[in-house]
Amino acid sequence: MKILKGFPATSNDDYQLNLLTLIKHAARSFGEQEIVQLLPSSEEVTRITNKKVYQRIKCLANALEGIGVKPGDKVGVLDWNTITHFELYYAIAGLGAVLLQMNPRLSAHDLSYVVNHSKPGIIVTAESLLPVAESIYDLIEGVERYIIIADKDSSAIETKLTPVYDYETLISDNKPEYDWQMIDEKAACFACYTSGTTGRPKGVYYSHRNSYLHSMQTAVSYNIGDKSSVIVFPAMFHAAAWGVPMLASLVGAKLVLPGAYSLTDMNAILKLMVNEEVTFTCGATTFFLAMLEEIRKMKERPDFSNLTILSGATEPPLAMMKGYHELTGAIVIQSYGATETTPFVTVNKIKTWLEDKLTLEEKWTLRAKHGYPITGVDIKIVDETGVEVPHDGKSVGEILVRGPWIAGKYYNSPGSEDRFTEDGYWRSEDMGMMDEEEYLKLVDRIKDLVKSGGEWISSVDMENEIMRHPAVLEATVVGVFHPKWDERPMALVVVREEDRATTSEEDIRNILRKTFAKWQIPETIVFVDEIPKTSVGKFDKKVVREQYKDIFRT
Amino acid sequence: MKILKGFPATSNDDYQLNLLTLIKHAARSFGEQEIVQLLPSSEEVTRITNKKVYQRIKCLANALEGIGVKPGDKVGVLDWNTITHFELYYAIAGLGAVLLQMNPRLSAHDLSYVVNHSKPGIIVTAESLLPVAESIYDLIEGVERYIIIADKDSSAIETKLTPVYDYETLISDNKPEYDWQMIDEKAACFACYTSGTTGRPKGVYYSHRNSYLHSMQTAVSYNIGDKSSVIVFPAMFHAAAWGVPMLASLVGAKLVLPGAYSLTDMNAILKLMVNEEVTFTCGATTFFLAMLEEIRKMKERPDFSNLTILSGATEPPLAMMKGYHELTGAIVIQSYGATETTPFVTVNKIKTWLEDKLTLEEKWTLRAKHGYPITGVDIKIVDETGVEVPHDGKSVGEILVRGPWIAGKYYNSPGSEDRFTEDGYWRSEDMGMMDEEEYLKLVDRIKDLVKSGGEWISSVDMENEIMRHPAVLEATVVGVFHPKWDERPMALVVVREEDRATTSEEDIRNILRKTFAKWQIPETIVFVDEIPKTSVGKFDKKVVREQYKDIFRT
Repeated sequence: MKILKGFPATSNDDYQLNLLTLIKHAARSFGEQEIVQLLPSSEEVTRITNKKVYQRIKCLANALEGIGVKPGDKVGVLDWNTITHFELYYAIAGLGAVLLQMNPRLSAHDLSYVVNHSKPGIIVTAESLLPVAESIYDLIEGVERYIIIADKDSSAIETKLTPVYDYETLISDNKPEYDWQMIDEKAACFACYTSGTTGRPKGVYYSHRNSYLHSMQTAVSYNIGDKSSVIVFPAMFHAAAWGVPMLASLVGAKLVLPGAYSLTDMNAILKLMVNEEVTFTCGATTFFLAMLEEIRKMKERPDFSNLTILSGATEPPLAMMKGYHELTGAIVIQSYGATETTPFVTVNKIKTWLEDKLTLEEKWTLRAKHGYPITGVDIKIVDETGVEVPHDGKSVGEILVRGPWIAGKYYNSPGSEDRFTEDGYWRSEDMGMMDEEEYLKLVDRIKDLVKSGGEWISSVDMENEIMRHPAVLEATVVGVFHPKWDERPMALVVVREEDRATTSEEDIRNILRKTFAKWQIPETIVFVDEIPKTSVGKFDKKVVREQYKDIFRT
Repeated sequence: MKILKGFPATSNDDYQLNLLTLIKHAARSFGEQEIVQLLPSSEEVTRITNKKVYQRIKCLANALEGIGVKPGDKVGVLDWNTITHFELYYAIAGLGAVLLQMNPRLSAHDLSYVVNHSKPGIIVTAESLLPVAESIYDLIEGVERYIIIADKDSSAIETKLTPVYDYETLISDNKPEYDWQMIDEKAACFACYTSGTTGRPKGVYYSHRNSYLHSMQTAVSYNIGDKSSVIVFPAMFHAAAWGVPMLASLVGAKLVLPGAYSLTDMNAILKLMVNEEVTFTCGATTFFLAMLEEIRKMKERPDFSNLTILSGATEPPLAMMKGYHELTGAIVIQSYGATETTPFVTVNKIKTWLEDKLTLEEKWTLRAKHGYPITGVDIKIVDETGVEVPHDGKSVGEILVRGPWIAGKYYNSPGSEDRFTEDGYWRSEDMGMMDEEEYLKLVDRIKDLVKSGGEWISSVDMENEIMRHPAVLEATVVGVFHPKWDERPMALVVVREEDRATTSEEDIRNILRKTFAKWQIPETIVFVDEIPKTSVGKFDKKVVREQYKDIFRT
């Protein structure tokens, strides 16, 4: 992008947007505001104020510096949605280092690839995630120290990780003063890896500027302020929890963290949301579907009339959206985004001048779209030649996105340059259309990913693995709608004629188990004589998805 | 400020924060949102949508470029709070040029100084401000073209300005497409001149980045969103109308402009506020005092229970704040700021955890402070040696401010370097204190300025002028509380003994008329034998202010 020079300003433009500023200023201006976390028992919570958590962050910064973390270093983190993870966000960023987000749901194969690609010198892990850290211990290089977050002293913990430091001891051994330096706002603070369409996870390294501006604009677009209470369901190892923890610091909102939560904790989570008077949340549609099921069973349903739920599904489930509204008063808002976009790109609110113009049913139809672009983000819908298609609610094209919190490249990923246009747009590989009122609607995904329970699975990787089986002639994997997981992968496999009698579904699963996590393995593997193909002979996944679209519907 | 390098991010950090983006994206995502302006008749309003105003802005950009405006050029503007002024904000910034804010309330002496210091090549003036433009015509250099904003064609207007272009003709003659370039975010978009303590107005040149970030954070701190309706009372030639017009574009709020309003239009303004369902406004305390007087007289008082009024007075008038609350339901919020700070630095809201803790009376006491610092702004209160004083609600020091929307220097102003610290703070020359909860309270002003009706008067300049009178031995000018104008200047003058019989107050006023505007001349000039002095022999303005503090009280 060519940048035009103008007349020099007198503003303090060298003052850098630093992530650390958000908690530093929260500790000052919203010192008594709370961060609340659900404890593993799911029964109790722990609370800490911004002022106190900032003290601990300063201790932690001293501790990390003491064991050798320098500006530009990477620190891997394996942790849930916890206060300690929140502390690590800021302490690592404040030092000018980079927090490598380690997704414990990845296979050891992929997770070790991520670590070796990013090269952290230290890994911090929650005690409950020790098995994950240990599973990659022999596969990774360059990690010289481990820090364990535990209730008890780490010397009481048996592990093959070494050398090991104890998180709480590090904090208590260090002083709560730290003379923060100003960090270049273009320096990375988070390294997030996204599943790619071909081969390996790709690194998206958010700059301080990126994360700061995204939090500011999100607060504006979603009307989150000092009276808000936000609970964070997106994993803190996923796109920096969609920026919500930083947003809470920025606006002075109460931050509620569900800890190491799972779908089975739904009652405890609902109780937490009611007690903490939560007004805003976001997360995977899967999760909110399960929550709604729980709410349906309750005799006394929670009053969520002040709650906004932000979610993003390829096909927004209108029944769920209506269900929340009818049973609890909550509003479910659709949005569009990706790891590469930090993630927020759009917001689906009814524009003021449409309020009186649309009928109730028309409003629901509108709500099932993905919303209008938020200020600061450029969006284009282009055809195959790169020309913009009309915004008429029916012309479909690929969604291109550009802006201060959109990726400009992938980290050290030769061959991925074609995912970015010359004028700075990221190619989403999602197909969509814009209506006359500038509401975006996703229609299909050209990237071959399956999104199951909010987590991505690469269908291309899975196909490649299945093809390794000597009996397999052809294989394709597609994502199919699933009422609980939003999508599940299913495989269509053509086995050589001579091997048909001796090849089982379990044989296919066995080969997948080497590189895929357990939850990623498809329940449904269908042996067929032929896979539908397009005119140029490629697998026609669109046709496959259409054929099997009801396979998980009851 | 030393900036620490880190690890390179993959974000699109070259994407510049450009002011133009705000209206471009407002035209896209909030296309039907309205901008409403009160017409000179005070009876009617005119309306335009974001989409349509953006079309006109593109025509205007083509027109300005056509008559020679290039990136880095300055364009002087003399206009009220109008849609045309709003168009000029964006068209000039979009071209990478700088809008020089021309304050028509300045004397020809000061206004011509501002123009000659900033050197615009073009001046755009509202027809109603032609007398001002003409009054400086022979005093300014380098202005090669004039554009007149008028209802009729400018050829019908008699003026000595030449050559003259007609604003509406320029717009209708140009096409509504413009291929905006990306402007360096550190380039200036507004040049605002502030009255200095010594001598001449000083130039504060806001960068795009500065204005953009200020608008974003203000939207967050004041909870302004797409459902808001904001009316702009700060003059659009003052600190870019406190950033409110840009803020409205950013969040998608309705923007209401009062035109060339005055205190005598109060009924029409109140009607406008009710009709347009205004939820947020800001401005000088003087103005809101006059508004409250009008409301008191009304039989049917407006319901302002959704209205927040943001204001900033050295001594916040609690009676007025309570008056609004009781009579209309509106909340008056204090803030602190200056032209050098864009202006917002603090906001006075009751922090959530104080809501239940404080009694009603304690809350009013708190509301009469100036609020806590907004996120992104560093504040220090320092003693004379530059050391921070405790935040105990009683230790007084000078207020220093730093951040992305705080000035880092004055434009071309040798000798003003001492107004900035080495670590990037601007010295406000205001004295204040912070309490334990981080609420700022202004206590005194060390800068010798008088703020009358929201406009600044330099007491130092006035003293210098008075001292030119051959009969005057000593003179000091201080600002004294005034129930209508917040402050008025008053002069204490020591006349030489031999001239006492022959020197009148009117003689003093006559000498001031040469360089001061009519409204700046003090009504009260007191002849004394001696002016109180400090231990080092300086005029002790604190003592003078104390002695005369009740002079305008009835």
